Formats: sequence, structure tokens, C-alpha cells
Amino acid sequence: MDIQRIEAAADRLEGHARVTPLLSSPFLDDIAGRRVLVKAECLQHTGSFKYRGARSAVSALHEDQRKNGVIAYSSGNHAQGVALAAKQFGVSAVIVMPANAPRVKIDNTRALGAEVVLYDRMTEDRDVIGTQIATERGLTLIKPFDEPDVIAGQGTCGLEIAAQAAELGVTEAEVIVCCGGGGLTSGIALALEDRAPGMQVRPAEPENFDDVARSLSSGRIEHNQSPTGSLCDAIVTMQPGDITFPIMKRLCGAGFVVTEEEAQRAMAQAFSRLKLVVEPGGAVALAAALYRSDEINSDTVICTISGGNVDRAVFLSALQQFGED
Amino acid sequence: MDIQRIEAAADRLEGHARVTPLLSSPFLDDIAGRRVLVKAECLQHTGSFKYRGARSAVSALHEDQRKNGVIAYSSGNHAQGVALAAKQFGVSAVIVMPANAPRVKIDNTRALGAEVVLYDRMTEDRDVIGTQIATERGLTLIKPFDEPDVIAGQGTCGLEIAAQAAELGVTEAEVIVCCGGGGLTSGIALALEDRAPGMQVRPAEPENFDDVARSLSSGRIEHNQSPTGSLCDAIVTMQPGDITFPIMKRLCGAGFVVTEEEAQRAMAQAFSRLKLVVEPGGAVALAAALYRSDEINSDTVICTISGGNVDRAVFLSALQQFGED
Repeated sequence: MDIQRIEAAADRLEGHARVTPLLSSPFLDDIAGRRVLVKAECLQHTGSFKYRGARSAVSALHEDQRKNGVIAYSSGNHAQGVALAAKQFGVSAVIVMPANAPRVKIDNTRALGAEVVLYDRMTEDRDVIGTQIATERGLTLIKPFDEPDVIAGQGTCGLEIAAQAAELGVTEAEVIVCCGGGGLTSGIALALEDRAPGMQVRPAEPENFDDVARSLSSGRIEHNQSPTGSLCDAIVTMQPGDITFPIMKRLCGAGFVVTEEEAQRAMAQAFSRLKLVVEPGGAVALAAALYRSDEINSDTVICTISGGNVDRAVFLSALQQFGED
Repeated sequence: MDIQRIEAAADRLEGHARVTPLLSSPFLDDIAGRRVLVKAECLQHTGSFKYRGARSAVSALHEDQRKNGVIAYSSGNHAQGVALAAKQFGVSAVIVMPANAPRVKIDNTRALGAEVVLYDRMTEDRDVIGTQIATERGLTLIKPFDEPDVIAGQGTCGLEIAAQAAELGVTEAEVIVCCGGGGLTSGIALALEDRAPGMQVRPAEPENFDDVARSLSSGRIEHNQSPTGSLCDAIVTMQPGDITFPIMKRLCGAGFVVTEEEAQRAMAQAFSRLKLVVEPGGAVALAAALYRSDEINSDTVICTISGGNVDRAVFLSALQQFGED
């Protein structure tokens, strides 16, 4: 993994992935006690940064391989990213999703042209189902994060951050990234190492699912106790990846761990101050920027909003509990 | 008013106004039955396009005049735009606001550094109060729409639409603009006349406040019956301007009139499909694009989202009534 691979991904994504805006609000600066810049990946196609990595990986396949189609396991944002990327190349996509995934995510993935295969989380093994389908049909697995072309695609977000911040005169900052398996975090870290060496990436996670923060602290891969159970489900994984972790270990500063309430408060602030719809997992970096001031040293903090695919009820609840009038 | 004035405004706004993204969603295309592109001015500084015109007008003043400060009458988006523009130039701003304006808008305008003068809508005359203050202090009035440098500032949004659409290969489209007094509508129409002559601007208004649609139909300035009473209050004015109307008459196609329910449905679609927070008045153009398909002829329709400064309760209500799960 190096900057050339990210640059190659950027070439393949040109004209496809959106250059998302870097936003700000004086009201957020006041809360944080410093300048806050927000990279709004909820405005990316399919509502999350995941489209970058999915399109990067699908576009990097040899045509002979790609034409047979792709497969992914996901209940959420990666599913939609892969579905759209496959549709754009006119190849089939099979997405293996839990039968109890939110109806809207299943419907959206189907509407993007993917074949959705449902499985029962309690009685069936998704890997067995997926491997069987992939083998039978010759499909290529698009992993969610521990895959170089996926990391390279997410890294294009870092290229944009460096360029957009430089336009504002910002070359030094802590860059807080919503972190699950580490694809976005490691991709941005690699991009900034080359393009903005005065910036340092720091991951943000929800409490009880802070495997990356603990791994960075101990120096080896640590696991979460449970694979589910956070409101911030979009960024919950059991552990950092074998490819992503060494990159994060080399380049990242200490991780932030925020509460679910802080993530919801950040959602309410994004609503009123940025006019953005943010999902709980997509709000943890903004929550760290706003409510962990004492753990931040730089004059400017940049944070990613990783996605906006939030159920209406979850969004309403956050606004009702933590919005201001 | 001509394109040179808009280009001059663009030069003054460079590095200050945000280039807002032109967004899209295949799900919105499906509803509309055609390609839909959305210019997201809710992401502009202060949460609406009004900052463009305000900064344009304040920056066009001679320094001797500007240093004495500016004044505006507004309960909403124009107030915040003028307040921020004045703050950036280090000059004072007085905003005359009704005492019963939403608390959050008064607070926001104050937080942006403006002096807010409240008046009682029932017993006091805002023009008398404003004129007295302006005369005493030598303040310059920044009108909300019927002022060339304000129109020129709003027109910069049209320059961006032409360039961003061209990048997508779109040079022909109907461009639907949320319309109050016509500042944004006439500014965009002038910009597109020069930069994208294959596009035609059409205003969108809420029902019972369709003065521009009726004026375009009759060929002379028509009035609304009431100055208030629409959920879409941000774009309600009594009549089109003396400067804006002749421009709209020369360049615009027929107006759209949408119901409050359609505006709220468009808000819910913007939430789920674009991840944007939109105020009711800012949603009327999207509502026309989605729900007035039979009145549109072009293969591609472009619509502005003019602002996102919506009270939490109004937003929650729209989502609860018209959101999908």
C-alpha cells in the first residue's frame, strides 16, 4: 500500500465519486474551542464513503474477472457501494445480507440492481453461503476494508482533505476519522502522509467497540467482546484488519472513544449547524471534535462524517433528545 | 443588470462563498421520471443562498460607506447572511427583527455579531424604526432582493450550476428555483442566459403565495393577499421586485405552485435520499421536480434547495408525516 495506489484509484474514480465539501460553522468552532472542518462523506453516492472503495475495487478488476460479477457481505453501507459500482459496470452483484437487516437497506440494495441473498443470523453461516455462491458463479469477493484497492479508494478522501484544507490555508491539523475496520482511517492516513505531513490521523470509535483505540495503545490487534449492539452499527467490526492495522499503527495518533449520547448530540449539531443528515456511526468523529477538546492539541481539527444512512426513527430520537430550539 | 455584474460579484465572493455541490440520487430520478440534479444551497454559509447576495452587496460598498455599518430588515435567512458578511468586514450590522421571530434565529443573528433591534409587529412600523436608526448612524440598507449587487451575488449560484452541469454533460434543462422576491431566480436566469443558453429558469412557490407565477402569467406585477401564513415563510414576499420582475419576465418559463404537503414530502426525500436538511421554503423547487412531472418537458431538471434553516419541530413533523421507513 502506497500513495501511488491511492493516486491510481483517484484516476479511476474521477468523474464518478463526488468531491464532497469540507464544511464548517462558527457555532461548532465555539463548542470545540478551535476551528472545526467537516468532510461530509454522507453526501457521497449511496450516502457513505463506502462507494469510493467499492468503485475502486470493482474498477481495478480485470475485465475477464469483473464480467462474472462480484459478491459482498454487508448489511449496510458497503452493500450499497458495491451494488452501485457493479451496476455502473453492468455486472451482477450478489449481496449476502442478514434477513433481519433494516428493510430500507435491503430495498435500497435491491433497487441499486443487486441480487440480495438473505440468511438467518442465528442458524446459518454467511461465509458458507457466500463461498458456495461465489464458487458456483465465479464471483469475486469485494471485502469491506482489508483489501488494498478498497483502502486506496477510501484514501482518495484523504487526497481531497489535503487539497481542500490547503485552500483554506490549513496544513497542520489532527484529522479524526470514524473507524470500523480501518479502511477509511488507513487510507486517509496514507494520503495525508504524502500530501499533508503536518496532519495526523486519529481514529474515533463508540464506547465498548474501541478495538482500534485499544490496539493502537497495546501495539497489537485487540478484539471487541461483541460483534453487534451499538447504535453506531455502521462502524462496528470485531477487530482492525491485518492490512489496515500496521498502517494505522505506523501513522495514527491515539484513538478517541465517545459515548452513544455524544454521537447523538453530534448528529443534532450536524442537523442544526451543517444541515447534514448523519448516522450515529458517522457522527463519532464530530463528537470527538466537539466533546473531547481536552484530548486535542491542534488549532484546527478536521473530522470525517462517514455516512448518513440512518433510519428515520433513530434520527428523530436523536433530534428529540438532544436537539436545541 | 448583466453578466459582467455577476462575474464581478463572483470575483468578490471567491474564497468566501462556498461552491455548493450539485447532488443527485437514482431514487429521486425514479420519482421524477427524469434525471434530477439538486443544487444544495442549504450547505452555503449561514445555511442559505442569502449569504451570496449579502456578501456581494456589502463587499461592493465603498469603504467609506461600509465602515459606518449596514442595516437589514429580516426575520430569517437574509439577516444571518448580512450579519456574517458585516462581521467578516469588521463593520457593524443592525438587523431589525420582529420580537416574535423564532428565538433560535434571533440568537443566531446575535451570535454572528449583529445588533438585533426587536419590534412589535402589531404596534410598531419596522420601516420607521429602521430609517431612524439608519439615519442617526449613517448605516447603509442592504435590501433582501431588489438590489443589483444582491441579485448579482445570487447569480453566482447560476454560474456554478452551468459549470457543474456541463461537467456532467448537461447543457439543456429546466432549472427550477425557489422564489420569493426573485433575487435568486433572476440572478440565476441572467447567469444561465450567458453560460447555459439551453437552460430555462422556472420559479417555484407555495400555494396561496404564488405572486411570481401569476405575475409571469399576466405580464404585470401581481400581489399576494397576505404577507405571512405559509409554512414556507422563508420565500414569502408580497410581490416580485421592480428590478427582478422584468428580468424574470424576459427569461423565465411558467412558474410552479406546490402545496405545503408536497414541500414537506420533498423535505422527507431530501432527508433520506440526499442526506440534506431542508427548510419548507427551500424544498418547493425539489417538490416541483418530483411531483409536477407533467408540467416539465426537459430530460434533465435542475432544482435549487435554497436553505436549511428549519426549526426542529417543523422538520420532525415533516419526517413523521411523510418520511418512509
